[in-house]
Amino acid sequence: MQVGLIGLGKMGLNLGKNLMDHKHQVVAYDLNPQAVDEMKANGAEGTTKIKELVQSLDKPRVLWIMVPHPVVDSVISEITPYLEKGDIVIEAGNSHYKESIRRYNQLKEIGVSFMDAGTSGGMEGARNGANYMIGGDPEAWEVVEPIFHDTAVKNGYIYGGKPGSGHFLKMVHNGIEYGMMAAIGEGFEVLEKSEFDYDYEHVARVWNNGSVIRSWLMELTENAFAKDAKLDEIKGIMHSSGEAKWTLETALDLETATPVIAMSLLMRYRSLDTDTFNGKVVAALRNEFGGHAVEKK
Amino acid sequence: MQVGLIGLGKMGLNLGKNLMDHKHQVVAYDLNPQAVDEMKANGAEGTTKIKELVQSLDKPRVLWIMVPHPVVDSVISEITPYLEKGDIVIEAGNSHYKESIRRYNQLKEIGVSFMDAGTSGGMEGARNGANYMIGGDPEAWEVVEPIFHDTAVKNGYIYGGKPGSGHFLKMVHNGIEYGMMAAIGEGFEVLEKSEFDYDYEHVARVWNNGSVIRSWLMELTENAFAKDAKLDEIKGIMHSSGEAKWTLETALDLETATPVIAMSLLMRYRSLDTDTFNGKVVAALRNEFGGHAVEKK
Amino acid sequence: MQVGLIGLGKMGLNLGKNLMDHKHQVVAYDLNPQAVDEMKANGAEGTTKIKELVQSLDKPRVLWIMVPHPVVDSVISEITPYLEKGDIVIEAGNSHYKESIRRYNQLKEIGVSFMDAGTSGGMEGARNGANYMIGGDPEAWEVVEPIFHDTAVKNGYIYGGKPGSGHFLKMVHNGIEYGMMAAIGEGFEVLEKSEFDYDYEHVARVWNNGSVIRSWLMELTENAFAKDAKLDEIKGIMHSSGEAKWTLETALDLETATPVIAMSLLMRYRSLDTDTFNGKVVAALRNEFGGHAVEKK
Amino acid sequence: MQVGLIGLGKMGLNLGKNLMDHKHQVVAYDLNPQAVDEMKANGAEGTTKIKELVQSLDKPRVLWIMVPHPVVDSVISEITPYLEKGDIVIEAGNSHYKESIRRYNQLKEIGVSFMDAGTSGGMEGARNGANYMIGGDPEAWEVVEPIFHDTAVKNGYIYGGKPGSGHFLKMVHNGIEYGMMAAIGEGFEVLEKSEFDYDYEHVARVWNNGSVIRSWLMELTENAFAKDAKLDEIKGIMHSSGEAKWTLETALDLETATPVIAMSLLMRYRSLDTDTFNGKVVAALRNEFGGHAVEKK
Repeated sequence: MQVGLIGLGKMGLNLGKNLMDHKHQVVAYDLNPQAVDEMKANGAEGTTKIKELVQSLDKPRVLWIMVPHPVVDSVISEITPYLEKGDIVIEAGNSHYKESIRRYNQLKEIGVSFMDAGTSGGMEGARNGANYMIGGDPEAWEVVEPIFHDTAVKNGYIYGGKPGSGHFLKMVHNGIEYGMMAAIGEGFEVLEKSEFDYDYEHVARVWNNGSVIRSWLMELTENAFAKDAKLDEIKGIMHSSGEAKWTLETALDLETATPVIAMSLLMRYRSLDTDTFNGKVVAALRNEFGGHAVEKK
Repeated sequence: MQVGLIGLGKMGLNLGKNLMDHKHQVVAYDLNPQAVDEMKANGAEGTTKIKELVQSLDKPRVLWIMVPHPVVDSVISEITPYLEKGDIVIEAGNSHYKESIRRYNQLKEIGVSFMDAGTSGGMEGARNGANYMIGGDPEAWEVVEPIFHDTAVKNGYIYGGKPGSGHFLKMVHNGIEYGMMAAIGEGFEVLEKSEFDYDYEHVARVWNNGSVIRSWLMELTENAFAKDAKLDEIKGIMHSSGEAKWTLETALDLETATPVIAMSLLMRYRSLDTDTFNGKVVAALRNEFGGHAVEKK
Repeated sequence: MQVGLIGLGKMGLNLGKNLMDHKHQVVAYDLNPQAVDEMKANGAEGTTKIKELVQSLDKPRVLWIMVPHPVVDSVISEITPYLEKGDIVIEAGNSHYKESIRRYNQLKEIGVSFMDAGTSGGMEGARNGANYMIGGDPEAWEVVEPIFHDTAVKNGYIYGGKPGSGHFLKMVHNGIEYGMMAAIGEGFEVLEKSEFDYDYEHVARVWNNGSVIRSWLMELTENAFAKDAKLDEIKGIMHSSGEAKWTLETALDLETATPVIAMSLLMRYRSLDTDTFNGKVVAALRNEFGGHAVEKK
Repeated sequence: MQVGLIGLGKMGLNLGKNLMDHKHQVVAYDLNPQAVDEMKANGAEGTTKIKELVQSLDKPRVLWIMVPHPVVDSVISEITPYLEKGDIVIEAGNSHYKESIRRYNQLKEIGVSFMDAGTSGGMEGARNGANYMIGGDPEAWEVVEPIFHDTAVKNGYIYGGKPGSGHFLKMVHNGIEYGMMAAIGEGFEVLEKSEFDYDYEHVARVWNNGSVIRSWLMELTENAFAKDAKLDEIKGIMHSSGEAKWTLETALDLETATPVIAMSLLMRYRSLDTDTFNGKVVAALRNEFGGHAVEKK
């Protein structure tokens, strides 16, 4: 199948090669001529002019957008004038599902089918077998399924149904990920504060062989301890990139109790501060009613 | 009523004076002769010999133990040889209710009635009107109720029933206290991180006049901000003295979901650390699967 | 001061009377002629035509909107054509602070000053002394402070500063309220599941006299138990009206850890369901790996 | 190596066969003669008399206790009279690590080495490759390592060090398991309450292929949905068997914040009730201050 690939960052380049491995024809676009050249060297056609990209594709067109999510709307604006009824636009970044529903409705007005595809598995996955969760019109899905099938790992893609359902699944996936990571982190902290002296790399390896909690995250835990046995070199500052926050916000909108996901996120925020105003208020109150000493700065 | 008062620390001294204000006869004991002298100067009898104290009391004796909870068992051991059937021993410190049940059963074997009394209200309360939650035998309660009635603030005491019920109530009281304090602390932290610039003392005062959250804790919050407008001088380290931990442990034994009390306690523990092993594990995992940068020490 | 009062529901009627008690001149508007008549009978002027209301006021006008928050925007639309530069519009309902900031900016374009006033204390407060948290322009605040001063309980109002700061304070107030209520609820549940048999009305009364957790909410707890000693007649379904959700959403936006407020809200949602899909998944998993029996429907 | 195997329940029988697969000599004991016969039929020696078992073993003896944890102490009492200095006792059930430390000290007094072995992987693991976490004296470990090595799955055992360290690791493993399961359950509940209509078996399969959250628990989730697509037939009642409670209690003793493990446990308790007293108190309070309707039974 011919695919117009917009965005040749690390993910896009790997996906392009993956598509070509499976005999799909890639027409690639990026502002950066070197990235375009790299795709060309691998057998793709390519251009640094987005108008040219869209116009060069066979109709109905299949366009795959793989750009950072803050840029998605501007990319859609740029291609919209050249799109025609029947074209299909896949957006495979980390967008909020409500944004995807909005974009779906926006493109539907001109007869273009928008598909939201949550992508997991990182660069390695993009290159050799990704994980996809896709939403959009069933008619469009029928057209594009082969490219997802071919570039996914075995059993690694799902058509979730209505527009937004793909990015929704990806969002919840990340919410679960936060909870699992927090559970692992808490467990190792209990080990660390205990009276025992464990070899954490060994613990993670054993927990990953035959135990109930064996998982890819536990594999990664083993890798991390292999590099730095007590994690002495790093700080416990846990940044976050938004999808667990979306999951919790969605849970609130759905009046759903997700305490574990909530706490995993809130503890990430807590880790950003070395001291808290909250704690100061409580310490001051203990001093007020009980005369308990506060610690001065 | 004649009361043998064991322990003339700040709480004991104030309680002794409170008892005498209400025409009760106090026979006071402490190892410290100065404390005994202070009570004598206020009209009590007194001694630094515990045997003398017990033997000098009219039978059946009423003994009120007001000592730090780690010392309670040794005090009971010391007085036990001189106690007789029908005597009543009140223990008014911060003991675990299961300890109180054990002590009740221990003294019951020699016909002595043990009463557990949780005491709230601090030194000021002990002096002018305390808050009591009392458990023990109903027959003993009938005997000693007047001294609780007279030294409590109006409507400020309850006989909770079975042995242990007094300290159990006090324990749960403190669990609620932790949750309330955490709620207040979290609220002010949201204010502090917001785009607005509030006068917190003023906020606390207004929240304490006519609003749903008016409370003694909010009064204390106002006082704390009056002394240090942004709490710049103190650290947000929140120590804890055990009763919320007992509340949570008891909730676990009762298979009762107490998430707010649990989190208020866990966040106190969290505040004791400036960095966490938990956070290191999560940060390392993010780095492993997503290439997210970790912050090096 | 002359005040144009829009909305004569229970809150508006009580506020109108409160204003007149303090010699302010009320010109009242409501679609409902009976409500207008009631205000007139109390000494106000009144009309059922909003245009008439606005046009009859002395300039610069002071308008006080006291309507349910879904109606606020339509009321503002209706009055906008008749407003003039220098007029002041107070909105005293339960609006989201971001809505208030938007409305402030909208009215600023025509030179009208918008003030957001969070109101606490219920109908009784509106009548005899309310609790206010107000945001908006300082010049406008100087003009309207007297009507807040006069209708508030003593020490019961605060000018929080920038537009939105009033409704923000009210929002956080409610977040704290959720946490406090949850702490109280959890404490009583521990009592209820314990081996002891307490008189909860008595417990609440004692906790409200001399203890650290004395508060208006504890007073209300006593009242509730006075009516139904074990709350046998009601279900533990905890609805919510949005402000704690806003508090948590705001905390997430500010990357602030508010676990107690979060859990108090999530447990309200949990109470809406008698069974959960979450629980089914966990029960099924226990069955899968451990052969633990599931409970069939 | 010769092993005296005490307890031929499902785990013990499978372990016995596993040992014999690896050319170890098993002398089996159980009160149930049929179980003993089954082991004999597989090539073991066996007896229903525990004294006979102990006395028949070569010295220094290696005894492996595989009985339900409430019976462990009585088994140890029964064998103690026949044990001699240098013997090694392995306890491979789900005991609390503090019990294991106590048992270690108890047997140390007679010169017997006690080893605590947490076992994971279920019956299938016991038969074909288990997962072990072992604590105890290093000298004893050197003796018995071969039987753990041979009966474990590859990379599936760890000697954790000091007495108690094995059961401690197993306890924390289960704490992590609770958190992971809760995260998965919450995620699926968000899906279930959403506007989308997913095939959960398919979702779990895709999440288990190439995604960050791939794990054995996700495999089991797929299996569970394969049997009952929406889990319509079961109730969401989540029982628990104690080890996450121990993990949380231990975390409290260590003053360690484990909010995710805490919440995963508390939500299990919450699931045991269809209504809560907590909820009634909060609902009653909302009614008291806001006139919000309560739901009557």
